[in-house]
Amino acid sequence: MYFYKEDLINQIVPDKPDPAAAKVLQEALGGQFGEMRTMMQYFFQSSNFRGKETQYRDLLKGVFLEEIAHVELVQNTINQLLTGAGGEPPGDSGVDGAPLDEAVKHANPHHYIMGAQGSLPVDAGGNPWLGSYVYNHGNLVADLLNNVVLESTGVLQKTRIYEMSSNKAFRETLGFLIVRDNAHQNAFAKALETLGVSWGKLFPIPNYDINKYPECKKYVDLGYHNAQFNYRLDEHRMGEIFSGQSPSRNGGELQVTPPPNGFPVPFNPEMPNEHAPGLTDLNR
Amino acid sequence: MYFYKEDLINQIVPDKPDPAAAKVLQEALGGQFGEMRTMMQYFFQSSNFRGKETQYRDLLKGVFLEEIAHVELVQNTINQLLTGAGGEPPGDSGVDGAPLDEAVKHANPHHYIMGAQGSLPVDAGGNPWLGSYVYNHGNLVADLLNNVVLESTGVLQKTRIYEMSSNKAFRETLGFLIVRDNAHQNAFAKALETLGVSWGKLFPIPNYDINKYPECKKYVDLGYHNAQFNYRLDEHRMGEIFSGQSPSRNGGELQVTPPPNGFPVPFNPEMPNEHAPGLTDLNR
Amino acid sequence: MYFYKEDLINQIVPDKPDPAAAKVLQEALGGQFGEMRTMMQYFFQSSNFRGKETQYRDLLKGVFLEEIAHVELVQNTINQLLTGAGGEPPGDSGVDGAPLDEAVKHANPHHYIMGAQGSLPVDAGGNPWLGSYVYNHGNLVADLLNNVVLESTGVLQKTRIYEMSSNKAFRETLGFLIVRDNAHQNAFAKALETLGVSWGKLFPIPNYDINKYPECKKYVDLGYHNAQFNYRLDEHRMGEIFSGQSPSRNGGELQVTPPPNGFPVPFNPEMPNEHAPGLTDLNR
Amino acid sequence: MYFYKEDLINQIVPDKPDPAAAKVLQEALGGQFGEMRTMMQYFFQSSNFRGKETQYRDLLKGVFLEEIAHVELVQNTINQLLTGAGGEPPGDSGVDGAPLDEAVKHANPHHYIMGAQGSLPVDAGGNPWLGSYVYNHGNLVADLLNNVVLESTGVLQKTRIYEMSSNKAFRETLGFLIVRDNAHQNAFAKALETLGVSWGKLFPIPNYDINKYPECKKYVDLGYHNAQFNYRLDEHRMGEIFSGQSPSRNGGELQVTPPPNGFPVPFNPEMPNEHAPGLTDLNR
Amino acid sequence: MYFYKEDLINQIVPDKPDPAAAKVLQEALGGQFGEMRTMMQYFFQSSNFRGKETQYRDLLKGVFLEEIAHVELVQNTINQLLTGAGGEPPGDSGVDGAPLDEAVKHANPHHYIMGAQGSLPVDAGGNPWLGSYVYNHGNLVADLLNNVVLESTGVLQKTRIYEMSSNKAFRETLGFLIVRDNAHQNAFAKALETLGVSWGKLFPIPNYDINKYPECKKYVDLGYHNAQFNYRLDEHRMGEIFSGQSPSRNGGELQVTPPPNGFPVPFNPEMPNEHAPGLTDLNR
Amino acid sequence: MYFYKEDLINQIVPDKPDPAAAKVLQEALGGQFGEMRTMMQYFFQSSNFRGKETQYRDLLKGVFLEEIAHVELVQNTINQLLTGAGGEPPGDSGVDGAPLDEAVKHANPHHYIMGAQGSLPVDAGGNPWLGSYVYNHGNLVADLLNNVVLESTGVLQKTRIYEMSSNKAFRETLGFLIVRDNAHQNAFAKALETLGVSWGKLFPIPNYDINKYPECKKYVDLGYHNAQFNYRLDEHRMGEIFSGQSPSRNGGELQVTPPPNGFPVPFNPEMPNEHAPGLTDLNR
Repeated sequence: MYFYKEDLINQIVPDKPDPAAAKVLQEALGGQFGEMRTMMQYFFQSSNFRGKETQYRDLLKGVFLEEIAHVELVQNTINQLLTGAGGEPPGDSGVDGAPLDEAVKHANPHHYIMGAQGSLPVDAGGNPWLGSYVYNHGNLVADLLNNVVLESTGVLQKTRIYEMSSNKAFRETLGFLIVRDNAHQNAFAKALETLGVSWGKLFPIPNYDINKYPECKKYVDLGYHNAQFNYRLDEHRMGEIFSGQSPSRNGGELQVTPPPNGFPVPFNPEMPNEHAPGLTDLNR
Repeated sequence: MYFYKEDLINQIVPDKPDPAAAKVLQEALGGQFGEMRTMMQYFFQSSNFRGKETQYRDLLKGVFLEEIAHVELVQNTINQLLTGAGGEPPGDSGVDGAPLDEAVKHANPHHYIMGAQGSLPVDAGGNPWLGSYVYNHGNLVADLLNNVVLESTGVLQKTRIYEMSSNKAFRETLGFLIVRDNAHQNAFAKALETLGVSWGKLFPIPNYDINKYPECKKYVDLGYHNAQFNYRLDEHRMGEIFSGQSPSRNGGELQVTPPPNGFPVPFNPEMPNEHAPGLTDLNR
Repeated sequence: MYFYKEDLINQIVPDKPDPAAAKVLQEALGGQFGEMRTMMQYFFQSSNFRGKETQYRDLLKGVFLEEIAHVELVQNTINQLLTGAGGEPPGDSGVDGAPLDEAVKHANPHHYIMGAQGSLPVDAGGNPWLGSYVYNHGNLVADLLNNVVLESTGVLQKTRIYEMSSNKAFRETLGFLIVRDNAHQNAFAKALETLGVSWGKLFPIPNYDINKYPECKKYVDLGYHNAQFNYRLDEHRMGEIFSGQSPSRNGGELQVTPPPNGFPVPFNPEMPNEHAPGLTDLNR
Repeated sequence: MYFYKEDLINQIVPDKPDPAAAKVLQEALGGQFGEMRTMMQYFFQSSNFRGKETQYRDLLKGVFLEEIAHVELVQNTINQLLTGAGGEPPGDSGVDGAPLDEAVKHANPHHYIMGAQGSLPVDAGGNPWLGSYVYNHGNLVADLLNNVVLESTGVLQKTRIYEMSSNKAFRETLGFLIVRDNAHQNAFAKALETLGVSWGKLFPIPNYDINKYPECKKYVDLGYHNAQFNYRLDEHRMGEIFSGQSPSRNGGELQVTPPPNGFPVPFNPEMPNEHAPGLTDLNR
Repeated sequence: MYFYKEDLINQIVPDKPDPAAAKVLQEALGGQFGEMRTMMQYFFQSSNFRGKETQYRDLLKGVFLEEIAHVELVQNTINQLLTGAGGEPPGDSGVDGAPLDEAVKHANPHHYIMGAQGSLPVDAGGNPWLGSYVYNHGNLVADLLNNVVLESTGVLQKTRIYEMSSNKAFRETLGFLIVRDNAHQNAFAKALETLGVSWGKLFPIPNYDINKYPECKKYVDLGYHNAQFNYRLDEHRMGEIFSGQSPSRNGGELQVTPPPNGFPVPFNPEMPNEHAPGLTDLNR
Repeated sequence: MYFYKEDLINQIVPDKPDPAAAKVLQEALGGQFGEMRTMMQYFFQSSNFRGKETQYRDLLKGVFLEEIAHVELVQNTINQLLTGAGGEPPGDSGVDGAPLDEAVKHANPHHYIMGAQGSLPVDAGGNPWLGSYVYNHGNLVADLLNNVVLESTGVLQKTRIYEMSSNKAFRETLGFLIVRDNAHQNAFAKALETLGVSWGKLFPIPNYDINKYPECKKYVDLGYHNAQFNYRLDEHRMGEIFSGQSPSRNGGELQVTPPPNGFPVPFNPEMPNEHAPGLTDLNR
């Protein structure tokens, strides 16, 4: 069973709204290689795991637990990028108020129609998340290799999305997730090492210099690229895989650690022109 | 952040494999009104919640937490219904062994091709789960009404699926979930009562006599239809909504309670003819 | 605006339930070349029509109107094929009653989970109807050619579906629709004749002998293959196209005629084991 | 069977083309909560209705009939927003003519590729309409509650779309539909009242002041928010439900009335640069 | 079996990047009427062909072979329209470099996230290619009529896409494909002539003057609108259909000819800010 | 450009029809890891390839060419499994002939409705092929790792599908493709070796004993698991990668070789009850 403490896994850095950035950041939430995919893929892989080598199952479950918090982090980042991007509330300016301004023209219109300027389970092109994204064939080698591809593609896409806006909330979340995807890339690469693979200089994928990303650097300094956060309230066998030398050229020792101290979940203000939550006069 | 203790929210009752039952039970996992939908819908609704009336947000979050455990319960039930349904392993009988037998002809073929006789994120017709199932418009009244429809449809579908097999694992899981969907129906109906609605004799939906379902009765006797399980490790405001008289004709007092004692997560045996996990000779 | 008289466009012949037949007949309702497609395609083509040659627009609109009645006819046929196919109601036999029997094993499970043994907007494989089926490019020649393909494929598919069950309700509806698709094939083929095409011996498509289908013969004898039913309450220009020699080898004169006398819409009995409509005790 | 008189249910107010507005208005046509959904949902619910309480079936059928006219109204509004938005026809200016201008950059490209500057069965994000949008579980309470959610979400989305352009054709159509969605919200809320629910102050959803929308006011003054338009050519039982005190805080008496006088269907001019209808020289 | 010589079927004319043009040109690659559709449709039609009239099968196969080269041509054109459209590489300018500029705001974001500024199997709206686009019912008349619609719609869409940018690479590829679609329209129209149809003045569809498109004219002068390129390394019967008078008003003799001399496949430069191919330091 | 010689890449062994086998074999054609995916994935990867290391591009292109022939092989195998499975033609037995028999009840109904007992671009569950299956991110390491997963999953699925029927045509085609997928697994694994990876004992994936599959053995004896068939009519650099020691535990030397001698493309007989091709009386 699953327990919760209201802490965000990383901070949301304040900055101005940027709905075009919110649109492309959706890829990291509801895209084919986004956080909903990683969350659901590791959930199915760990629940459907066969056999006694439960150190692998525990690793899959462990990464799954963190991915729930990643989904929550991206949801909150998108909300911040959207909030305040819709102009003056009509409640103040009247219904003849100005239509959506320039910034909103490059937004996902569903952020303003289906969501109350809130995140959606879709990708950067507005396509809804699909169950067929989940890869879980039950053959551990195939599943682990697919996980390596998934985490590597996650980093690759995030470095590309990163270029699309200099908004600080946007880049901070991407920077944190790039480092954590790196750690998960290491987790699955290491699992394959226990099955006999030597990766040489292949990792990290892509072959980028993480130090060029200022937002990443502080998380690397904290050792987050080599840590597996432990969200288990009971015994587990993750450390049998996640320990020893990192499979990446960046080096270091892999280590199961407690999760970071959480950050407050941001407050989403009322949005009268979206009728959200729209309770005025009702709950009295 | 999210924490885990390896306990299943309910038992998996042993019985014979029944792949046709596994096929239709997928509706309760990956269907438009299944547990993946409830889980993701309440996740988005609670993360995107606007305004200060956080008693509603905490209720949404609280139900979300239990839904993760529901997904896990259905995954494990499907796995048990499938395991052993593929005939003798070819590893023993040779590759000329018998092809899939009668039982498997009415199965979802993807349970044997994509999954290693394991659950999938699809519905009873094999359609993949879709992000567009999630309803989260940010208007609390609309969101709550949709949640009532969702939980009511969940019960309605499960009573219909229940008729499709007398397998004990299948019916026990359905019975437990019917009672819990009932509790969540009560949660959202009660939330609408706080906004002024009087439901009369409308609930439960559908208008069924729960005592006719022997699997349900023991959970009703335990009061599970009127309980909100508390998976929070910190303070919350759920009890401001979930308390007082039940909105259902079945009566009783709504109460936030600790979760049930967990049950062991079943062991999924190796499946050589599915190459799952397929590690022999590799990890040495 | 659209008006309604509660008459079915053709009779529903009584016969036993046949849920496997209901499953495949869905193709004629929600398939890529089914009645929902024809209905929506001609709706969009007539609403979006450009230019002054409104005789073509009126023809499109006229066929659209009949297609609404076709959708209704197939819905009712599917309902009859399903009703009574689920065994004894559990309300009588108790919840330990027999699970779904042999017949239902070859049914679409959604007919029993989503529908209360009722029709669905899906095809024979259970795939939901898609807006992208609609062809409406606004170029009249391309639109008319596509309509010819659509009606011809409608007949072709129905002759193939016809082979799948000897159920009388199933075959009567298919026989009627084959003849009417023939008339609509003639309508669009004739429209292309007015633009200069000579079809030679090409029609009907497929090249079948309609007299081999006993259900069709009586409708041919009534001249339904050469009639355009007129559902307009005002003036129109359909007859400028739909008149003169039929473009088909079957010959005859095309004629705009009043619609047939309607047939009573069948009564769908309550279905307690589906909780449909499930009102007992509520509306008092 | 279905009959037609060539009248639009409301006027199309003349204004300049606005293809970006056409793009977002598609949500009200082919979106998950748009007019195609309401039309098809009530069509299936009324055709598949079970039992003798036909006053509910007649109400469902009655709203269905109006929804066909709503689809037609939105199609025509989108056509007007698109017509003239593609620059000079190349037939006059030559093929070296200017490419699509600024306005078109924010359009749905399919409006110019698949449609001849005409409406499409897609939503504001360009996603095709899906059969799985239709909710018809055959349990009357669940179906009615879903209809309340559907109509409420229709209003909610339209008030949000309304903010996206001040184009008069766009706002007039939205204003009319907001009022009519309100009436349909009342219809289904009232049907649930007959089953025992008291709504208190919950309606209208969202909790908006309709008088702030100048386009809405005149329709409210006409009583359109409390009227059920009668498109039946025979007897029906709608009035058994749709009568008495409105369930909304806006008050008034519900009443079945004749439909409004229709408005002329706008003429869509030829569009040579789209080859629509493209008949020149052919039909002689 | 299939053989390859590294030649492009037409030239890629150099011009500046234009990512908005790349976005809409995707319709001609992965759209419902694009080159992936034609390629796969004729592949299935020729492989599944029934009966001894193999002159039709050979024609289908022959057009299929050219369509593979068309897909390759559009892929390369899109690549050229994208390459260089992403600003300075961050490797040079640092991670604080400018975010995506104005031009990219109207691009398909997946061209920069999933592709490394490369083509994708999607349409102009970003919707992925669907297997259900393929029409192959096995009835030769219906299949040929559908092919005529497909090729006609291909031309129609390309003349509309042509208006969207004056980029030379974009227009040259469209011009070449318009002429070749014309030839394929003639092929299938001629095949229907052998079955008895006289087309009158119907072709070409749409009814456009190809001489107004300067890019088309040189290909018409080369006779490409009346040629079937022969990619067979063995005997075939295509010429039994594709010969004699063109069915188009443009006149001329149909003729099976050798394919054009190929053009060099363009070199796609490395794209460091996309980590493509990202090999630096690895393969040493 | 692409050239064709009418040879099938492997034989179709004669055996009885088996439509249930045809249904599941569709996974190998139109499934997420089937031959249409491999074909289109390597097509896009080779066309969009960036940089001067064209030995990798040539390898991708080389495998693409063979995959076209694989698609053709599976299409033909499915056709053979379907042909003759529909009972007596109604042309002989009259329209009152027997409906579809037992065997067909477990078939994909679209094989008899959309196809004329012919293959379709769908998977074993009837879901249409999707463009989003294609992985082409332009980063060579990520693309190659994904290709390894794709080929490994191809083998894994085929060994599972193999168990589902003992039909000889079915198993021969699967056996051949398992060996060739193995060769392609080796190709991409070897390409990653050139970038520094040592695979240890990981390959083949899954960890199966190929000698247990009698259909595979003869192809292994021919060395097909270590051969890259050369379909180029010009120079290429494939051999720079595909040479030297196999990365698999099965050992041997990788070698670029000429393709096998082809086999005759089977004749598909006319199918009167499917109206395929349906030409009688027309082409005279």
